[in-house]
Amino acid sequence: MAPKKKNKVNVKNKNEKIKEKSNNYIWLLVVSAAVVLLAVLSFRLYIKLSTVPELPKVDLNVWWGPNTTNPDTSIRKYRILFSDSMQENLRRKFETFRRATRLKSLEETAAYGINSYVLAQIFAHWQFKYKYTERVRYFNRYEHFRTNIQGLDVHYVHVKPNVGNNVKVLPLLLLHGFPGSIKDFYEVIPILTTPRVGYDFVFEVIVPSLPGFAFSQGAVRPGLTAYQMAIVLRNLMERIGIKQFYLQAGDYGHNIGSHLATLFPNQVLGYHTNNPINLSGSASVVWVVGSIWPTLVAKEFADRLYPLREKLAYYLEEFGFKHIQGTKPDTLGVALQDSPLGLAAYIIDRILLFTDPANKYKEDGGLPSFNSTDLIDNVMLYWSTGSITTALRFFKEMYLNNEMEDKLARISTTVPTWGLRAKHELTHSPDFVLRWKFPNLVGTTNLDDGGHYLAFEKPEVLSNDVFRAVKRFLELKKNK
Amino acid sequence: MAPKKKNKVNVKNKNEKIKEKSNNYIWLLVVSAAVVLLAVLSFRLYIKLSTVPELPKVDLNVWWGPNTTNPDTSIRKYRILFSDSMQENLRRKFETFRRATRLKSLEETAAYGINSYVLAQIFAHWQFKYKYTERVRYFNRYEHFRTNIQGLDVHYVHVKPNVGNNVKVLPLLLLHGFPGSIKDFYEVIPILTTPRVGYDFVFEVIVPSLPGFAFSQGAVRPGLTAYQMAIVLRNLMERIGIKQFYLQAGDYGHNIGSHLATLFPNQVLGYHTNNPINLSGSASVVWVVGSIWPTLVAKEFADRLYPLREKLAYYLEEFGFKHIQGTKPDTLGVALQDSPLGLAAYIIDRILLFTDPANKYKEDGGLPSFNSTDLIDNVMLYWSTGSITTALRFFKEMYLNNEMEDKLARISTTVPTWGLRAKHELTHSPDFVLRWKFPNLVGTTNLDDGGHYLAFEKPEVLSNDVFRAVKRFLELKKNK
Repeated sequence: MAPKKKNKVNVKNKNEKIKEKSNNYIWLLVVSAAVVLLAVLSFRLYIKLSTVPELPKVDLNVWWGPNTTNPDTSIRKYRILFSDSMQENLRRKFETFRRATRLKSLEETAAYGINSYVLAQIFAHWQFKYKYTERVRYFNRYEHFRTNIQGLDVHYVHVKPNVGNNVKVLPLLLLHGFPGSIKDFYEVIPILTTPRVGYDFVFEVIVPSLPGFAFSQGAVRPGLTAYQMAIVLRNLMERIGIKQFYLQAGDYGHNIGSHLATLFPNQVLGYHTNNPINLSGSASVVWVVGSIWPTLVAKEFADRLYPLREKLAYYLEEFGFKHIQGTKPDTLGVALQDSPLGLAAYIIDRILLFTDPANKYKEDGGLPSFNSTDLIDNVMLYWSTGSITTALRFFKEMYLNNEMEDKLARISTTVPTWGLRAKHELTHSPDFVLRWKFPNLVGTTNLDDGGHYLAFEKPEVLSNDVFRAVKRFLELKKNK
Repeated sequence: MAPKKKNKVNVKNKNEKIKEKSNNYIWLLVVSAAVVLLAVLSFRLYIKLSTVPELPKVDLNVWWGPNTTNPDTSIRKYRILFSDSMQENLRRKFETFRRATRLKSLEETAAYGINSYVLAQIFAHWQFKYKYTERVRYFNRYEHFRTNIQGLDVHYVHVKPNVGNNVKVLPLLLLHGFPGSIKDFYEVIPILTTPRVGYDFVFEVIVPSLPGFAFSQGAVRPGLTAYQMAIVLRNLMERIGIKQFYLQAGDYGHNIGSHLATLFPNQVLGYHTNNPINLSGSASVVWVVGSIWPTLVAKEFADRLYPLREKLAYYLEEFGFKHIQGTKPDTLGVALQDSPLGLAAYIIDRILLFTDPANKYKEDGGLPSFNSTDLIDNVMLYWSTGSITTALRFFKEMYLNNEMEDKLARISTTVPTWGLRAKHELTHSPDFVLRWKFPNLVGTTNLDDGGHYLAFEKPEVLSNDVFRAVKRFLELKKNK
């Protein structure tokens, strides 16, 4: 029996060897395929990166309003109003809100979206503690204006500092994103318009509501994508009488700001972004390919960009809102336009999670680190203007018109640029990738905390960084 | 000057040749990489397809209700009620509905989601023509029951035919999907329970509301995915006293039906599906790889599966609802639970577009081919029960627990199966792919029209096909 057994073992060994060999063969195939593919991809990437498209000619007068109107192009004072009928409507809606008997968060997890604790807190605060009259006063502490640009009434806040002749006044355009508003900058404005020791300049700030957002009308036809918004806002600055200005932006404001600096490099004096990313497809390719060697690509920020698999899973988990907004804004908008708590949940969920992803696993959702009045203020700007659907449509425009957006993202700009990176920013571009777009990247500030909505979350940090960046822009200009 | 010009041309030609050569080189690389990659993928696919996982042991008594309850496991009669307070709440909500001054559809396109015409029609019908009392009578024309299964009160309609001894009565379980309900089968039920010439059998039908949908309670903890629903429904049939039954399903009902046939092949006598697809990842791989030679893979249905690029773009455009439901059901649910028109828009948008994709480009959205009362009936089942959020959560469960779902999808079942393919079904599996999952595929019916919600859209077509399929199942059984 012994020899037989030995035979068997031999056979087994032989089989295993064959299996091993064929496994080796598969791996050889896989590896060589991957190598060839990478070589091809790298080469195509090189071709793509080395062929920059020419700056396309853009129409500065596309008409976004109804065809019949003959608009008043004057600049009109505007006051924010929470009308009695709107307040009464809200009260009645709150009375008929369908309490969440079946809406309790599941046991064991709160990661299914906004949890019942956060919703209850927001509801209680809005219903019993939010003071409309006081908040209207708060909103009107700055001067508001509206003027018609390309057929659309565009709203903006304009604050001039009160200073002597020895202090230079620099115009600064501040751009919000989604689901933000002019509210994002309410604590930033007084800091930027107040002179400070060690600086011989101060800012005059213009804070528009993006077209379709809050008090700015939405387009009546498709196509008002980020670069078209850049044109609208450049025209707004011309209307105000400001030929050259500095720029600060975050979130989708950065898409617009990036295009503004690209299309109008002689009008944008300097660009401060707290979402310092290269928006081109090439940058995404580098990110994906870079996953082979994260520290080479991302250096000390490797853990903010990688592991790729984790990051992709995170985007899949958190970017459902972009998917539905980018495809069916009008369907989603019906409910958000009709339900105040639904709108609040939808907006506040994003702000909590994009400020700190860890909030997802907290029983209180991280709500205590925010001021509920501030959160509802922002919701109220969408609510009182019934503008959520026109705001959502922006994502559809971006989805439909991606080609032109990507083309512009690949064209570099000479505008001096400064990036402020928050720890929990959604996406990161390494400096070298950022320089493809912004070769005149003067500096970056890298925070160990903070999230995606930095103007709202950390107004002082953001304001200080803007002063610092612009000081550096001015020094470099002088030294030229 | 002439020779000089000629020289220039020569140089150009040389450059062009070099460029051409390097282009050839790139293409050689691309093609060889693709070939190697495909070989590897095919090999891995072969490995995957040839290694079928073992049927996992499943727990038939997972507890989905609150831990504290001591449920009544009797079968209780149930009556559908649209309470006065709910009707009053709806009226008040309609009064405070925020009319869509800014919600008009964009000019030039209606493809941003539900359009303002459809919304206005639905609103007018619901507000002024929908008769609650009459509809309650309609819903209660069949007998309703509830019983507690695994901690959850599960609701179902149970209709027995009134026939003599010469006609066999076969139990048939009918499964709806999202955003469907028992309403989907209301016109199917009388056809299936009425004896017909040429058939010596008739059906006794059981139509449950899926757990979390309408009158069936939702789970209080995560994990109630499609295969877990299959277990709940099998236990429901046991409770009713039916050991063996036939099965009909569409949409996500097919996921559950597919698992029922896999986990309980001795209890499912035959399976009729109007969403006849193989749900495994392997099937998707075949679909993608098959794009190289569509007619080989899909035969006469090539144009239903390909071109791949168009199909992918279609899924990207239409599946945003799955993305947000699969990740943030509770956030979305707040608004849909609070706004009746928001809920109606969200649900009816899916039904219009998944019935016929061409409806997207129609000014009337294809609404005239539906009966508005029928559409609102379905919405009312979600609304009156406040169950939209627990229904949405099902998608999150599917997203979180994909591994087990895919594993089960790869295990074949011996249950005789019949597929009814509508023209506008969202996805298709060619017969040979369908047979990996259902080797006992008795037949398929291929329609030249119809969409995803076939029981709702074409009750006669569906019912006739069920009779036909079951007759064939019985013949084959007899001949064995």
